[in-house]
Amino acid sequence: MTRIRFHQELDELKHRILAMAGMAEQAIDLAVQAYAQRDLALCQRVLNNEGNINRAEREVDEFAIDLLAMQQPMAVDLRFILAVIKINADLERVGDQAVNIVQRVMNMIELPASELPVDIPAMAARVRAMVRDALRSFIEGDTELAKHVLEGDDEIDRINHEAFATLSRYMQTHPDRAAQALDALSIARNLERVADHATNIAEDVIFWVRGADVRHGAGQRIAGS
Amino acid sequence: MTRIRFHQELDELKHRILAMAGMAEQAIDLAVQAYAQRDLALCQRVLNNEGNINRAEREVDEFAIDLLAMQQPMAVDLRFILAVIKINADLERVGDQAVNIVQRVMNMIELPASELPVDIPAMAARVRAMVRDALRSFIEGDTELAKHVLEGDDEIDRINHEAFATLSRYMQTHPDRAAQALDALSIARNLERVADHATNIAEDVIFWVRGADVRHGAGQRIAGS
Repeated sequence: MTRIRFHQELDELKHRILAMAGMAEQAIDLAVQAYAQRDLALCQRVLNNEGNINRAEREVDEFAIDLLAMQQPMAVDLRFILAVIKINADLERVGDQAVNIVQRVMNMIELPASELPVDIPAMAARVRAMVRDALRSFIEGDTELAKHVLEGDDEIDRINHEAFATLSRYMQTHPDRAAQALDALSIARNLERVADHATNIAEDVIFWVRGADVRHGAGQRIAGS
Repeated sequence: MTRIRFHQELDELKHRILAMAGMAEQAIDLAVQAYAQRDLALCQRVLNNEGNINRAEREVDEFAIDLLAMQQPMAVDLRFILAVIKINADLERVGDQAVNIVQRVMNMIELPASELPVDIPAMAARVRAMVRDALRSFIEGDTELAKHVLEGDDEIDRINHEAFATLSRYMQTHPDRAAQALDALSIARNLERVADHATNIAEDVIFWVRGADVRHGAGQRIAGS
């Protein structure tokens, strides 16, 4: 494989991981919409899409590993491919979280609707912004934006702890609504885990780009030279 | 680097990831013991060890990436190193779950002790067996044992769902114990996530060893030949 061909393959890898990212983002959006609208059909769409996300993950993984095996890339390309492998796993788990959310939503739909002291859509909007920024930092190789994502994680943890405390008190005063409150609590925690994955993605971007700066040349081919 | 030297380095990598595994296993054991004994000092030990686990993770990662960059390994070695990188990330997250557990335990210690309808130590024992088997499958390259670990995951999910349902009912009948029940629920979920990481490790072992069988030779050096 020539260097030019190799760089075309790297572009193709980037293209594929971004397609994968689009699927994971859509799954979360549908899950949150399903919660807001108590919509069973949207839940079903998320469940149906899970297989596609898992398949896409395997394909990206195989593609990345074949590139590693066939091309023996140098430091910055090696770190890029490793970052893609890690980001790929995180995106698949974002898809898993969407499934976990709709399982809770399906449970809630069977229970009486209940005004709960937690704003899931607002929390989801913040988490989605983190995911979007993490992916944009990847597309643009922007470590400043990646660092901004890392800072957002503390905010989500704080919101989630607050939701935990508020819903915990609510359950004590409204024991007949404990089931719904628990479902909402699960969903808040699932969103927190999505934020964790966004954080992981941002860390992988920093690992990749910093590797290009700090460790430049460290991985040049020593074997065989 | 000669092939012999390279295989010494691979052994060293295995040695380091197993040391990392030992730290993660110990963190979970201490966290579960802290729960059973309501022991604040054990909680503190888990919190103190977190930095060491994170440091070990970074060192294993750098070591693995340097091996990839310097040696341009062939298919089976490439897949082994990639498996180590993934297992390493899972072990670090097992350590994170230990921290999450002791944070809940510290909360519980401040509340009145409460007989809860959930057997955390029994669940923990099953999860620990999964982690142990996953690591043994890695040490021995044993895909049968790895498959056995994958089967265990459904059992843990079932136990966790049961705990969720039981504690949810308990909160409705004992609203004054809702806080303790929620803490126990969190701990059950953290243990389930540890089981997920054991599952990931088992999948990485299958990926590595199957790669050695099925795709043998696929990654031989094409570039430069």
